Order: sequence, then C-alpha cells, then structure tokens
Amino acid sequence: MDPFTASTPRETVERVSALLGCSPTSAEVAAYLDKHDKLQHLREKFLVPKIADLPTSDLSLVDGTKECIYFVGNSLGLQPKMARQYLDEELEKWAKMANHGHTKGTRPWAWAENNIEDLMAKIVGAKTEEVALMNGLTVNLHLLMLSFYKPTAARHKILLEYKAFPSDHYAVVSQIQLRGFDPQQSMLLLSPRPGEDALRTEDILEVIEKEGDSIAVVMFSGVQYYTGQLFNMAAITKAGQRKGCYVGFDCAHAVGNVELELHNWGVDFACWCTYKYLNSGAGGLAGAFIHEKHKHTIKPALLGWWGHDLKTRFQMNNVLELQPGVSGFRLSNQPILLVCPLQASLEVFNMTTMQLLRRKSLLLTGYLDYLVQHYYTKDPTQPHKPYVHIITPSDPQQRGCQLSFSFSVPFQKVFQELEKRGVACDMREPSVLRIAPVPLYNSFTDVHRFIETLAAALAACSSQ
Amino acid sequence: MDPFTASTPRETVERVSALLGCSPTSAEVAAYLDKHDKLQHLREKFLVPKIADLPTSDLSLVDGTKECIYFVGNSLGLQPKMARQYLDEELEKWAKMANHGHTKGTRPWAWAENNIEDLMAKIVGAKTEEVALMNGLTVNLHLLMLSFYKPTAARHKILLEYKAFPSDHYAVVSQIQLRGFDPQQSMLLLSPRPGEDALRTEDILEVIEKEGDSIAVVMFSGVQYYTGQLFNMAAITKAGQRKGCYVGFDCAHAVGNVELELHNWGVDFACWCTYKYLNSGAGGLAGAFIHEKHKHTIKPALLGWWGHDLKTRFQMNNVLELQPGVSGFRLSNQPILLVCPLQASLEVFNMTTMQLLRRKSLLLTGYLDYLVQHYYTKDPTQPHKPYVHIITPSDPQQRGCQLSFSFSVPFQKVFQELEKRGVACDMREPSVLRIAPVPLYNSFTDVHRFIETLAAALAACSSQ
Ligand SMILES: Cc1ncc(COP(=O)(O)O)c(C=O)c1O
Ligand SMILES: Cc1ncc(COP(=O)(O)O)c(C=O)c1O
Repeated sequence: MDPFTASTPRETVERVSALLGCSPTSAEVAAYLDKHDKLQHLREKFLVPKIADLPTSDLSLVDGTKECIYFVGNSLGLQPKMARQYLDEELEKWAKMANHGHTKGTRPWAWAENNIEDLMAKIVGAKTEEVALMNGLTVNLHLLMLSFYKPTAARHKILLEYKAFPSDHYAVVSQIQLRGFDPQQSMLLLSPRPGEDALRTEDILEVIEKEGDSIAVVMFSGVQYYTGQLFNMAAITKAGQRKGCYVGFDCAHAVGNVELELHNWGVDFACWCTYKYLNSGAGGLAGAFIHEKHKHTIKPALLGWWGHDLKTRFQMNNVLELQPGVSGFRLSNQPILLVCPLQASLEVFNMTTMQLLRRKSLLLTGYLDYLVQHYYTKDPTQPHKPYVHIITPSDPQQRGCQLSFSFSVPFQKVFQELEKRGVACDMREPSVLRIAPVPLYNSFTDVHRFIETLAAALAACSSQ
Repeated sequence: MDPFTASTPRETVERVSALLGCSPTSAEVAAYLDKHDKLQHLREKFLVPKIADLPTSDLSLVDGTKECIYFVGNSLGLQPKMARQYLDEELEKWAKMANHGHTKGTRPWAWAENNIEDLMAKIVGAKTEEVALMNGLTVNLHLLMLSFYKPTAARHKILLEYKAFPSDHYAVVSQIQLRGFDPQQSMLLLSPRPGEDALRTEDILEVIEKEGDSIAVVMFSGVQYYTGQLFNMAAITKAGQRKGCYVGFDCAHAVGNVELELHNWGVDFACWCTYKYLNSGAGGLAGAFIHEKHKHTIKPALLGWWGHDLKTRFQMNNVLELQPGVSGFRLSNQPILLVCPLQASLEVFNMTTMQLLRRKSLLLTGYLDYLVQHYYTKDPTQPHKPYVHIITPSDPQQRGCQLSFSFSVPFQKVFQELEKRGVACDMREPSVLRIAPVPLYNSFTDVHRFIETLAAALAACSSQ
C-alpha cells in the first residue's frame, strides 16, 4: 500500500495503524509514513539545527543533541547544504580573478540570476521568460503595480484582503496615493464573515462580480500569511479578468509550498520572496512574474540598464533596447552572493516536482491536523482542559502546509514552552502560532514529536 | 621629508629622485613612495589576484606568480579578507539557529544593515540618520526621484550630463514620462564644449543660472564614470538650490574615491553602489542619502514595512509608523549575505579617513599622470610614436583616482595587450581605457609596473 495515495489523511493514519496493530496516535505510524516517504532523502540536503544550538532551548527539559522540530520554514527556510559551497566558489573567483568574474566561471556575475530563472519558473508554473529574479519582494510589488495600476475615475479600486501582510497593505496605500486617489475610497478590503477566520471563495467572487467595474487591480496573496488560507487563484483570476480587472498575487507564502500555475491560470502578474519555502537565506533575491500575453503591451514605468537587452547592454550608448515582458522591469545588477544559496535550493526542488511535494504536504499537514483534532478539540465535558482552535481552513484545497493555531490558554505562553522544548515556530499578533511542516525537509516523525511536545507545553501552561 | 605633503606630484617625484640620485622615472622612486606611505598596510586587508589566475594573462609574456596590477577597483573592488569570515559566521548562524538569526548574534539579520550605516555615513560625510543601505543603485535613484521630482508646467526639467551612465539616463527618461512629461522637452543634457572632454564648472553653473527656473531637479554624478571628472558638488548644489531646484548626486564613482560632504554641502539627495570603491562584491547593497533638512517634509512615494519604525515593525497591525527621512524609504528587508562583505570593507575604511586616502590618491594618480605625460605626450617630431591622451581633467581637484586614456592606436588592442601582461583595467566604448589606482590597496610600485607594461603593450600594438 502506498500511504501517500489513500484518500484522506485520517483514512491513511487509520489504515496504517490497523496494519501495524498500533494506536493511530502511536509514533510507529509516523515512522511507517517516513519509511514510505519517497522524498525523505531531501531532508539530507539541508542543515537542520540541533536543539542545543537554539538560543531558546531549556536543556533541563529536552535532549539538546536532537535535531530541532523546525516548523518555521514559512518564515525562514533551512540552509541548503550546497549554499556554502557555491558561495565559496564565488568568493574564490572574486579573490582570484576579481572583475573577470563578471563574465567567467560557471556563474558569470553579469547574468548569474538568468541562469537559475528556468528552475524558478518551473516552481511557479511559468515560462522562463515570464520570470525575473531581482530586488526584494516589496520592491517588485511596487514595480509591477506601477505598470498594472492605472486608475481612472471610473475604475480606481484595488481589491485585497483586510489584514494583508503589512508591506503589501502599505504598498497598496502608497500606489493609490501616488496616482492621486484616496485609499479610503480606492482600497477595497475584504474581511471574513463575522465569526469566521478565512474568506470564502464565493464571497471573494461575489465582490468581484458586484464591484468589478470599479476595480482596477485585484491583488491577493496566494497563501495568507496569518491564516494560512490558500486562495483559489484560478477562480479569482478568471472572475477579475471577466470584469476587466488586472489580477496579481503576492506568492510569498505560496511559492514552494503549493502548486502554482501562474501561466495556465492566466494570472497577470505576481511576485514573491525566496527566503521562506525557497530557502535562499534572510533577505534573499525576490521574484516577479508577468504573463507573456502582456509581453509587448505592458511596459515598465521605471527603467534601468538591467532592463536593456543583454547582448548590447554594455555598449552603453544610452539608446535603450528594452527587453520584452518582465525582463524589461530589471533595474540594477543582481548580487551573485544571493544567487548562490537560491541556486542550491532550486536544485533540490528540481530533484522532485511541486506535485510530489504537494502530495506529501497534504498528508504531512493532514497528519498534524488529525493529531491536533484528536487531542485538542474543545471538549465541553472538560472545561478546564486546554484546547486548540485551527483558524486555517480544514479543506486541504484551501491551505498549504501551514496551520495557524489559537489556544484557550495564552498563546505567548504556549509559544515559550514550545521553544524551550526545541520547537522552532512563530507567533503572530494578535493571537496565533504558525506551524509549518515543510514537505521538503520535515518528517512525519517531526509532526509526532511536535504533538508530544505540545502536550508538555500545554501542561506547563496549565500548571502555572 | 614627507613626500605626501609636497605641493604637486611632479615636485614630489622630482624631489624624491634628486634625494635618491636616480631618474624620476626609476622604480626606486615608487619604492621610496611606498615605503613612506602610511596607508600601505591596508593593501594586506584585501585579496589581490595573481597574474596566473587572471583568465586573460599570457604567461609567455609575464611572470604569473606576481600579483596583478589591479586598476579596475572603479568597476569592482577587491575582496576584503574579512568578508569570508563574516559570511561564514552568518552561514554558521543560519545552519545552527536558523530563524533565530533574525534577532540573535552579532549581526541580527532583522536590522543588520542598520549596524553598519554609521560607518557608511562617515564615508559620504553624512549623519547616520541621513543614510540607508538598501536595494541596488538604480532602484534607490528611482525611489528618491519619485519624491524629489515633482514637475509642474513651469518647472519640469531635469538637468544631467549628456552621456550620463546609461542606467541614470534611462531612469531620468522614465521618471519624466511617469509624470506625463516629454523627455525631449524636460531632459536638459549638458555636453562639454566642442573639442573638450570634460564639462566646465562655469558652464554648469551658467546653465543652472539661465535655466534654473524651469529645472525641477539637478541630477549629476559625483565623478563621471567615463571621463573620471569630479564635479564641484558644493558649487552645483548651491547654484541649483539658489534657483529653487533640488540637487541630487549619483555617487557611484565618488564614494570611497573622493572626500564627500553631503551633509555640509546641503545636498538634497544622493545614492551610490558599493561594489566599486567600497569593495562589497558584485551587486552589493546600495546606499541612499536624504539631507536631514527634509526629514519631516519629503516623504517616500512608495511604502513598505521596512520603512516602519523598527520598534513596532513586527506588531504588524497595518498602521504605518513611518520612520523620518531616508529611513522611511526602506521597502524590503535586506540580505545579511550582502551586509557581511560591506561591513568587512567599511571597517577597513574606518582604519583611516577619507582625507588621508584622498591625500594618497592625489599623489598616486598624480604619479601615474606624470609618468604618462613623460613618456606618451604627443610628439610632433615623432609622428609614428604612439601617444596617450588623458581625457580626465588635469586639475587634481576635478578628478578622483581614475584616469581615462585614449590612444593614437586602437584602444581595444592596447587593452588586450595590457590584459595579456597582468593588468586589470577596463575599456569603455567609444574610445577609452579607464585606469584607476585605488589608494586603499594600490601602490606606487603598481603604477610604475603599469607604465612599464604599457610600454610593452604599445610596442606590441605598433609591431603588428
Ligand atoms: C554611475 C552609475 N550609475 C548607475 C549604475 C548602475 O548600478 P546598479 O546596477 O547597481 O543599479 C552604475 C553601475 O556601474 C554606475 O556606475
Ligand atoms: C506576504 C508578504 N508580503 C511581503 C513581505 C515583505 O517582504 P520583503 O521584506 O522581502 O519585501 C513578506 C515577508 O515576509 C510577506 O510574507
């Protein structure tokens, strides 16, 4: 039996436990799933911190020699082992041939980012020419918005989530102001229904249908950073475009996490960072996508020499030969030191497919969901027992690998107790812990250890 | 005698040769000057390539075991030896504590660039709060222009050099277009007088005086990348501001090369890259400056979360607390892997002062100038003898360390012959070689070896 193709995580867990003759909550189930995980070897491509090396660990409570439970790859991915070697190679080149490094070696600096854009494109479901690696995420969002957001008196709104990531929120505010409009009038913020945590696709589509004629750009995240909700990008794109809007996505939390088909969905533009699921290191090179249908029509608002055709870029006669599509949006030359770790990571992705990663992810996160439901569903008969509320949609099609937990006890306290015990995760105001089992390097045993650790953490919270 | 305080390079060279009883062109003069160079030890802080490691060297013509003559620090600075150690420290931190690296260690990633902005500020003559390290140069130029260039029907022009660096040229074109104006009308390009290579300060000031009322922004380079001309930034700033213009400088070729007093000169804004004289590696973090007088009045046109006050940035409640001044122009989080080499380099600068570096530079480049004049001035009595024309101003106050040479023989050929013989320099269309003896790591002996190599290169050109 291949446990990865069974219908639901619950069924898989129950079938495996029956097969092994153990409880569905037994660590044996996790071990079995790991053994049958064909992607398990990819973990070896990354450096997993030891518990003793995490500054928050309390070694009186946990064995410091073990690897930590790293569930915060949604914030900062682990270091690919090859990152250092690639960096060393480029430092060596800089030391040995200095300026000649621009054109020599396996990663000529003058077009280093271009060499990994094909790997990048695969992960977002795009053609290579539709993708550019450059700048930081917010910078790219602005460069794209400057060309896609051209408000008129009749069509001036930007539709986005209420509580989008702060940088996106501020970016949208400033884009509206830059064009002389008023964010109060032009920013259409979409909130979940009262008492609900996530947006309903039907509600998003309805707003687009109703207000679409006044919306210039629909700018959603692919996966919401706080709730972990995966939006139906295909449906949103279709609905928006039917009403004449441009539709763009901030894929910071979607890229490397879920399957993206930016090209096939006809998404107009997208951007993302690479330091989360793409493991490029803090502040790594960001990405941008413009659909090829806009190749000759949507032009960059801001120009720079890196947007000039590479073939004649260095003739420097100040007559711009603008590259078509997203390539023309390049401004500055890109840092080789950021290309190296990203290359190392993209090569690991290239050892598998997003489809296989997603298949594992559905089971891995489903397993976590299952165990949390099993132990921590609110129980009216035990009013003092701490419980966990998962604000992330329970429908696997509406989430990536991350689950966002809120608690009946103070979440900051749970966070601290987890950290003491070797869990790396993160806390987001106002009230959640974000827990991200990353299919690329996390294991089913990680999930099982987490559940055991959570029990200890909640016990510690209650006993105080 | 301190040779570094004599009045002109010519006088110094002649005095030293008299003292040593040798010809002014003797290598002994160079050796003497090196011995008395109090900054000589700084070369040891950098990795200087060996001739054999340069891909263009012809080892039948030159001893490959020697260090190359690295005169292209105006394009890519040498690697500071500490760069690798700092990078290793951060890779180690990423490996060992992953996401905790954002707030832990000697370079917490979440504000790593802030820790070196004081060192950066010293080099450009600014207060720390006037400086931000972020993005690439062209990106920063755009972010600044978006706030400083607010054209009106009466005042819509941007004054810049004819043949500014391509990226600056394109940036200005696009800024004008973005505001709905026509570059044909609004771009005021200043050319040298017929037959001259450099702009005269008087001509720049006259244009400002004449056309100032229609000029919104004066945007010059500090040092011109092609001619090596150092502009009188203080005078240009004063003249522009007197006419009600904003005055900004692209200091790519000025920073770390000449003394800058951006604050005292009252410059409105400036930007620069750090991979040239600041040795941060290809594509390194760029800089931006806004004078503190604009702290509360000039606001960023584009907003991002990195412009939010650090103290509350991560509360993420989408209520922007904008940092005053240039700090509010930050958009994306910055890469730790780019902070490391820049820190290594800025620390070397901090072992001396720009004043002392400039003092050495005047003699070092003056020595090169002297020797070139000595050997390669056009001689009407020897019409077949190759000669060199230095297009860079001969006035030391109007240039930095770079001299731009044109030749009576094909410059591409001279370039090739120099490269074969272990010289690293660069070639710029349409007709110059740029030769930059960098005071931070180049020696007088480098200059002398260069002159000998140039003789061999020109001989090879003529004999073919
Ligand atoms: C004067 C000047 N401006 C702009 C640039 C472009 O820099 P970047 O690619 O970092 O934007 C350069 C690069 O050499 C430059 O010398
Ligand atoms: C959804 C989203 N948007 C924007 C950003 C800001 O990214 P950057 O600092 O790279 O611009 C982040 C960073 O975490 C993010 O998650």
